[in-house]
Amino acid sequence: MNTADLGLPVDVPSTALFTDQYEFTMVQAALRSGTADRRSVFEVFTRRLPEGRRYGVVAGTGRVLDAVENFRFDPGVIGFLREHAIVDGATLDWLAGYRFSGDIWGYPEGEVYFPGSPILRVEGSFAECVLLETVILSILNHDSAIAAAASRMSSAAGGRRLIEMGARRTHELAAVASARAAYVGGFDSTSDLAAGFRYGIPTVGTSAHAFTLLHDSERDAFRAQVDSLGRGTTLLVDTYDVAEAVRSAVEIAGPGLGAVRIDSGDLLLVAHRVRQQLDDLGARDTRITVTSDLDEYAIASLAAAPVDAYGVGTQLVTGSGHPTCSMVYKLVARATTPTGALQPVAKKSLGAKYSHGGRKWAARRTDAEGVAEAEVVGTGPVPADPALRQLLVPLVERGRIVAREPLDAARERHIAARAALPMSAVQLSRGEPVLPTEYV
Amino acid sequence: MNTADLGLPVDVPSTALFTDQYEFTMVQAALRSGTADRRSVFEVFTRRLPEGRRYGVVAGTGRVLDAVENFRFDPGVIGFLREHAIVDGATLDWLAGYRFSGDIWGYPEGEVYFPGSPILRVEGSFAECVLLETVILSILNHDSAIAAAASRMSSAAGGRRLIEMGARRTHELAAVASARAAYVGGFDSTSDLAAGFRYGIPTVGTSAHAFTLLHDSERDAFRAQVDSLGRGTTLLVDTYDVAEAVRSAVEIAGPGLGAVRIDSGDLLLVAHRVRQQLDDLGARDTRITVTSDLDEYAIASLAAAPVDAYGVGTQLVTGSGHPTCSMVYKLVARATTPTGALQPVAKKSLGAKYSHGGRKWAARRTDAEGVAEAEVVGTGPVPADPALRQLLVPLVERGRIVAREPLDAARERHIAARAALPMSAVQLSRGEPVLPTEYV
Repeated sequence: MNTADLGLPVDVPSTALFTDQYEFTMVQAALRSGTADRRSVFEVFTRRLPEGRRYGVVAGTGRVLDAVENFRFDPGVIGFLREHAIVDGATLDWLAGYRFSGDIWGYPEGEVYFPGSPILRVEGSFAECVLLETVILSILNHDSAIAAAASRMSSAAGGRRLIEMGARRTHELAAVASARAAYVGGFDSTSDLAAGFRYGIPTVGTSAHAFTLLHDSERDAFRAQVDSLGRGTTLLVDTYDVAEAVRSAVEIAGPGLGAVRIDSGDLLLVAHRVRQQLDDLGARDTRITVTSDLDEYAIASLAAAPVDAYGVGTQLVTGSGHPTCSMVYKLVARATTPTGALQPVAKKSLGAKYSHGGRKWAARRTDAEGVAEAEVVGTGPVPADPALRQLLVPLVERGRIVAREPLDAARERHIAARAALPMSAVQLSRGEPVLPTEYV
Repeated sequence: MNTADLGLPVDVPSTALFTDQYEFTMVQAALRSGTADRRSVFEVFTRRLPEGRRYGVVAGTGRVLDAVENFRFDPGVIGFLREHAIVDGATLDWLAGYRFSGDIWGYPEGEVYFPGSPILRVEGSFAECVLLETVILSILNHDSAIAAAASRMSSAAGGRRLIEMGARRTHELAAVASARAAYVGGFDSTSDLAAGFRYGIPTVGTSAHAFTLLHDSERDAFRAQVDSLGRGTTLLVDTYDVAEAVRSAVEIAGPGLGAVRIDSGDLLLVAHRVRQQLDDLGARDTRITVTSDLDEYAIASLAAAPVDAYGVGTQLVTGSGHPTCSMVYKLVARATTPTGALQPVAKKSLGAKYSHGGRKWAARRTDAEGVAEAEVVGTGPVPADPALRQLLVPLVERGRIVAREPLDAARERHIAARAALPMSAVQLSRGEPVLPTEYV
């Protein structure tokens, strides 16, 4: 399947250049030294969660599968590599025939993770695996960062609706991926039409201050909007005086007005006043949406306010202080032949970044009540203990993708995985990872 | 020109869905109320710089021009909007014929900016201008954030080479835009091949720890790399013991070894030791590249270390603490007819976000020595004062792009603009914007 078949508004003819140059030069040197086809295992993991965070959220797995499938070298790309002498002719020939033919296992999308969790395991020849490093990390590091912020916000919102509206605060295509990751993390809809087009996420949106300013009066603007979009629309009431705007809104749309939106000011205070005013005007079912610089803390602080929906922008698409994860892609085992026995490997420089060598399994151990109590990571045979819920699932088998799923499946999986964590996982306060990672 | 003609690895058939839904519903309501063709002026500006920053850097302007040119509605997009009932039939007909036919002026790419600087001014009918809000902000907010971080890092590096290597820490296409913005901000090269392909930015990269671990010994790995890439290559010396690796590296490549890379540990200490060792081994021209979690402060702190090049990843592509700018796109003036006299407009809700109404010019006032002393922003006729260097240049005239330029022009412009600021602009310490903004 080509990503274009999925209705991608931005066609991705190839993902092969979303790659750091050293991956190509390593392939060249390995082809020449005869080590390129050594059987190899790479794993994606983090050494730590962002400071103070209790859990991470795996997101982007579906996009990784698209990227692996489209990792191909068309003549234009080969020509570029030749012209700039990035690699030699033998390597170009090898690249021209590239298709990933190995296996990928991973945590399914939406699952939570902890330091050391082997989120993705890529197996095949050294050369075919090493090339995928950058594109896999780009996707998982970005999407998981956004999903983690979204998950905290959706806990804080406690069932109230969450609208992703951060497109203007991030790269235009990162925005589409952010809307997708936010949905996985528990958001309900997005303002980003490309995300609706590409992933079928519900889209929402009605009007901005510019629409009010365009008209000769606020009343003219409200009348124009209600005439065109119906009384179920959301009117923006903070361009001039909020109380007057609410009065006009209900007068023009009637008490069946769908919603009002407040985008500035002291939201707690203003929401209470607006609710009272709407109720007094008989518009008891008119909802209140708030949308000004919200993050998980602001959402939580509005729990006592009569707010029906939150629109979140900047803080969501920038990961609420943590715009990226620290996932790395490391060679953990390799053979000395294409099919030989795997030997664990790990970097060992003094005082340096430490890694656990060896091909790993991972499981979540639960107590008698089904509450998670540890992330267990091991090498060797997978234990048959029923208290250990195995976390790695097959995603790609011999180059064939075997784990496509609707985005709702990832969203539901996330909500279930989060619910199975100890209660303190959803506290917003800073703390340690809510589960310890045990190496066995 | 289609962006595909520029060698874009990711074809952008249309940018029309990089849009928040409310822009479409506003167009629908305005078409119905007869206000859609009112002559309108929108401006992009920020109310503040990120906390502690002394200046901002305009980046992404070239990408904005591509986006405006490709903002078109093909049948697939129209079909999506119809199927999901985003807008009504009359609006779909209008969208199907959409071509931006107005004027855009702006700060040229690479120029510095301050709070209130009218970075971009978009003029045309309300409907044609309002649709561009999200895509313009996405590009400028992202790219300018990265360029601002890059600019601080390039000041701190004081002429040493800077390599952008953050692709794995951000969305795969944000990475390409980040490499571009970093180049504008003063970086010299990138590891991201897509950025080399798309924008002609010089690319670099040799090997990772995985390459050493793949081989039976570090010496085998070094030999394989030198055999394939030549002695001018960069060998990574911190997989096991650094001193032993440096000894092996020079022994295998000879004293003509191009460079060594250090990716972990106390870089100041290790760089000194490695330099001494290289010199003792006669490899006096072998360069040292360092690449571990650098930001502008770490770069500055290594000024006294014998380092030749810095590779920067995470902190660059996340804007060194400020991954987005707070640029907004506001209606500042409009007529009541398609060609009538402009009337300034501005949001005025109490305690709310404040804007200056009116179509603006902007200039940098310089003192007798040519050092900038104020950002001057005004409405009305542009003053003919020679001390006021006018900042807005035409980018699009009646829908036609008039300001394409090579990326090097933006890079050189940035270096010149930064050099004309007061000296304190390039201090890394937190402070107020280095120029005051004066409204006249």
